[in-house]
Amino acid sequence: MGKTIAEKIFDSHRVEEPFPDTHVLKLDRVFCHEITTPIAITDLMARGMDRVFDPTKIKAVIDHVTPAKDSKTAEQGKIMREWAKRHGIKDFFDVGRNGVCHAIFPEKGFVRPGYTVIMGDSHTCTHGAFGAFAAGVGTTDLEVGILKGVCSFHFPKTIKFVLNGELKPGVYAKDVILFIIKQLTVNGATNKVIEFTGPIVEKMSMESRMTICNMAIEAGGTCGICYPDMTTVDYLWDFIKDEYSTKEEALADYSKWVSDEDAEYEEIYEYDMSELEPMVTFGYKPDQVKSVKDMEGTKVDQIYIGSCTNGRIEDLRVAAKVLEGKKISDDVRGIVSPATPKIYSMALKEGIIDIFQDAGFCVTNPTCGACLGMSNGVLAEGEVCASTTNRNFNGRMGKGGTVHLMSPATAAATAIAGAITNSELFEA
Amino acid sequence: MGKTIAEKIFDSHRVEEPFPDTHVLKLDRVFCHEITTPIAITDLMARGMDRVFDPTKIKAVIDHVTPAKDSKTAEQGKIMREWAKRHGIKDFFDVGRNGVCHAIFPEKGFVRPGYTVIMGDSHTCTHGAFGAFAAGVGTTDLEVGILKGVCSFHFPKTIKFVLNGELKPGVYAKDVILFIIKQLTVNGATNKVIEFTGPIVEKMSMESRMTICNMAIEAGGTCGICYPDMTTVDYLWDFIKDEYSTKEEALADYSKWVSDEDAEYEEIYEYDMSELEPMVTFGYKPDQVKSVKDMEGTKVDQIYIGSCTNGRIEDLRVAAKVLEGKKISDDVRGIVSPATPKIYSMALKEGIIDIFQDAGFCVTNPTCGACLGMSNGVLAEGEVCASTTNRNFNGRMGKGGTVHLMSPATAAATAIAGAITNSELFEA
Repeated sequence: MGKTIAEKIFDSHRVEEPFPDTHVLKLDRVFCHEITTPIAITDLMARGMDRVFDPTKIKAVIDHVTPAKDSKTAEQGKIMREWAKRHGIKDFFDVGRNGVCHAIFPEKGFVRPGYTVIMGDSHTCTHGAFGAFAAGVGTTDLEVGILKGVCSFHFPKTIKFVLNGELKPGVYAKDVILFIIKQLTVNGATNKVIEFTGPIVEKMSMESRMTICNMAIEAGGTCGICYPDMTTVDYLWDFIKDEYSTKEEALADYSKWVSDEDAEYEEIYEYDMSELEPMVTFGYKPDQVKSVKDMEGTKVDQIYIGSCTNGRIEDLRVAAKVLEGKKISDDVRGIVSPATPKIYSMALKEGIIDIFQDAGFCVTNPTCGACLGMSNGVLAEGEVCASTTNRNFNGRMGKGGTVHLMSPATAAATAIAGAITNSELFEA
Repeated sequence: MGKTIAEKIFDSHRVEEPFPDTHVLKLDRVFCHEITTPIAITDLMARGMDRVFDPTKIKAVIDHVTPAKDSKTAEQGKIMREWAKRHGIKDFFDVGRNGVCHAIFPEKGFVRPGYTVIMGDSHTCTHGAFGAFAAGVGTTDLEVGILKGVCSFHFPKTIKFVLNGELKPGVYAKDVILFIIKQLTVNGATNKVIEFTGPIVEKMSMESRMTICNMAIEAGGTCGICYPDMTTVDYLWDFIKDEYSTKEEALADYSKWVSDEDAEYEEIYEYDMSELEPMVTFGYKPDQVKSVKDMEGTKVDQIYIGSCTNGRIEDLRVAAKVLEGKKISDDVRGIVSPATPKIYSMALKEGIIDIFQDAGFCVTNPTCGACLGMSNGVLAEGEVCASTTNRNFNGRMGKGGTVHLMSPATAAATAIAGAITNSELFEA
């Protein structure tokens, strides 16, 4: 019997199986941010266990509320800063060098095929785009991870998606994952791994793969995974070129992190995506998804382009192409948050920041910002936001506010119209 | 007996003098922002007096916490937005088009020599740089201003500063005003107008004049005033060219807003500023001022460049010149907030945003930000900030934090060193 990629990662990282179906895995990475980690740090200190298993395997960032918005968030940053210094955690990204965790960590080459990764953040599943097993965990697991470099998981039952065909112009990775969540429902993949495969995924950039893996959790999935291929090698090459003599050699090595053909799956879904339309959420659950056409004309107050789902350079390029030479509606506020300083700099050099600015957008520093309603664009009661983020939960972006999730292209078109639309995408 | 400029403005705007020394003046401008105005709006609505005296004379902006950081600030923005719409206030600057009030309103040409201006903001005195009488007011005065277009003031006793000589390289308007506040102390100009005159002021750009007038309130002054001259006309020309056939004609007209030679002053101070050194505050009062030399080596945690005092293009240019090709210390966080979208765009086109970014600064969207400890760079307990802002009050930028006020040049040099210095300024 063959194995899935997740099973292979489990096999290669298993330290022990103390109870049936409790697999303790060695961790390659423990990622940390300033909202969930200070709680773990403070608790470890109180227990007299202020240690870290390996400072080179811990990567930390201040990203959720940055720069600090009040004394509480300032204190959280300070705890992280002092902890990183105390333990020699060199890869700590502070104000000015910081960006959204799930964008900056891949960008720095911290994730590799076959890795195990945990973080106290639900969208840690993003890193599965590299063929890694990456999962969001709670405080206790995070503390154990920091201290011992291990984490326990149940056996990774896997749901496989085979995505065939070719996406129409104006249809993006975000539309694909919204469609998939609609099929699975918000509990459809609970405690399971989702494999994304097929020609659609093979043609996707790493950025797009991160977008689909990012939202695996919205269907309950522990991790979303794509198979590593030459796209993965190309993305990582600057960081791995000393390990391999050629890209082909790297690819051959990484090919062990691909599911066997006779692997056993919980379920396999196969879709032809050629007729997929741009999608958008309604209501308060990420599986409440309709085509943009069916939501056309829904008024919005704010447009938010950014986050670990869609704040990468590819996303900004797509949105800027729609916005170029145009002004957003006087009735809406536009906010764009490039996800990392590197993305911000690239956008600057490519004239993209200019385009957003000229269109009437507010360009913030890299931050998670408005996505989770903690800073930089919180909604007032009754306000509606068209957003490229990952959660439309009730009040997610501000108490009494409504969120419609969509692709950066649809968000840009919506900004111009002041109401949900994708007509701009098909004009030129 | 001659008159001061403030007396002339009072004479030309006096509606009545209902009690001795209570002068009710007609207002040319009522400026509004989202922290103090919603209180006035809500109170006027509760009284059944939701009206405005003249929507063309009211200018409004969301600038203090933008984009909104929480439900409260989101609600404040919403109240402003709906009020502006309800009353046809066209000059309302919302997210994406907004900047620091005392930078964006002058930039839009809203202030002219001889004008009377009020705002529910203590640094309204900034606009005196144009030869206007501009004063910060409380909620009751703001309500009356919005409703009736008038405000009552005491007779404007004036203190005159005659600033002679020439500033040394590395010495800027901020150093001049810190020096002046040191002489006056924080109560030295209470309920008085401060006139800034002499060759030093005559050579200053409008930006520098705004910097010195901005801090008149830190010595207790109701307003800081500079005489309008060709620098003023040049700055305003795009907005006034339909009113005058030549700049000389505009200048001749504006020359009525200059104090008479035999005007009566409360006090006159005359200084030769040629030997002035870069200055910096210590302690918690803006009159606690030393030379940078005397504070050299004082460690800081954060550098903040921005605000209505020093977030203008001239300030960013000076700081960028110091930072170009350099990295800020690993031990500090640098934050820069261009004061308006126009300043941001200019800085972008001039490569200044690039320089800040490459040096390791976090570039925020235009906002009052960290200056008043409400967003974008709040200090944690025990942290120290080198700041180009206007107030070093205890806890101003965050509870338990310390602020050292300084010029953008000194702030940039301090960012590189990680400790207060101006050595970088004199290297090249």
